Amino acid sequence: MSAPTIVNLAEKLSKIDEHWYPRIVGHYNGNEIRLAKIKGDFNWHSHTETDEMFLVLSGKMGIEFRDGVRHFGTGEMVVVRRGTEHRPFAEEECHILFMDKEGEPNTGDTPSDLTRESWILSDG
Amino acid sequence: MSAPTIVNLAEKLSKIDEHWYPRIVGHYNGNEIRLAKIKGDFNWHSHTETDEMFLVLSGKMGIEFRDGVRHFGTGEMVVVRRGTEHRPFAEEECHILFMDKEGEPNTGDTPSDLTRESWILSDG
Repeated sequence: MSAPTIVNLAEKLSKIDEHWYPRIVGHYNGNEIRLAKIKGDFNWHSHTETDEMFLVLSGKMGIEFRDGVRHFGTGEMVVVRRGTEHRPFAEEECHILFMDKEGEPNTGDTPSDLTRESWILSDG
Repeated sequence: MSAPTIVNLAEKLSKIDEHWYPRIVGHYNGNEIRLAKIKGDFNWHSHTETDEMFLVLSGKMGIEFRDGVRHFGTGEMVVVRRGTEHRPFAEEECHILFMDKEGEPNTGDTPSDLTRESWILSDG
């Protein structure tokens, strides 16, 4: 096995210019390590087959759950258990690292006009 | 499902006072999200059943592989594929978030005096 590639998150983020469009920057045990810039409201959804981990790299975001809202910011993380309905949002642009099972749509079980395929971010 | 707990990484790190002692701060899809403060040399090892993801939260670290060394710092990550021999090190104290399959020893297939069980970091 050859030595793996180092991924600089800020450099990858600099290539993202659309909100709520996840980009894949690594694979780990059948999961995708994804980056996104988010702003505004996402739609309610759940992921029936995968937990979802969120880590805020810069800014602030919130996630609405059926029993309350969680707000978190730079250097804070949360794991949303599979099957849990949630609705992410961010008042100002926020940069996140998150993780889902490989191939999981960003809108989970609830396709919408925000549904995106995750793309591997090119080095170009 | 109730709304999940937000984890503040700096607050969790403030409770760690030993180098190379991983602490669990979350679970994701059968994996453990771990934090550690590292300084000095770790031993050569590999993880035969799990990839290992490293993200530097602050500082600089390196990983020696059989065919070369990778150096990386704050905001940079790498995924070491299962079965890949590697040896982490840090000249100065470095704070990392990393991830392994649940229960995986930090020294993988090569127990040493650095072997630690990962502990859930209490909220105390």
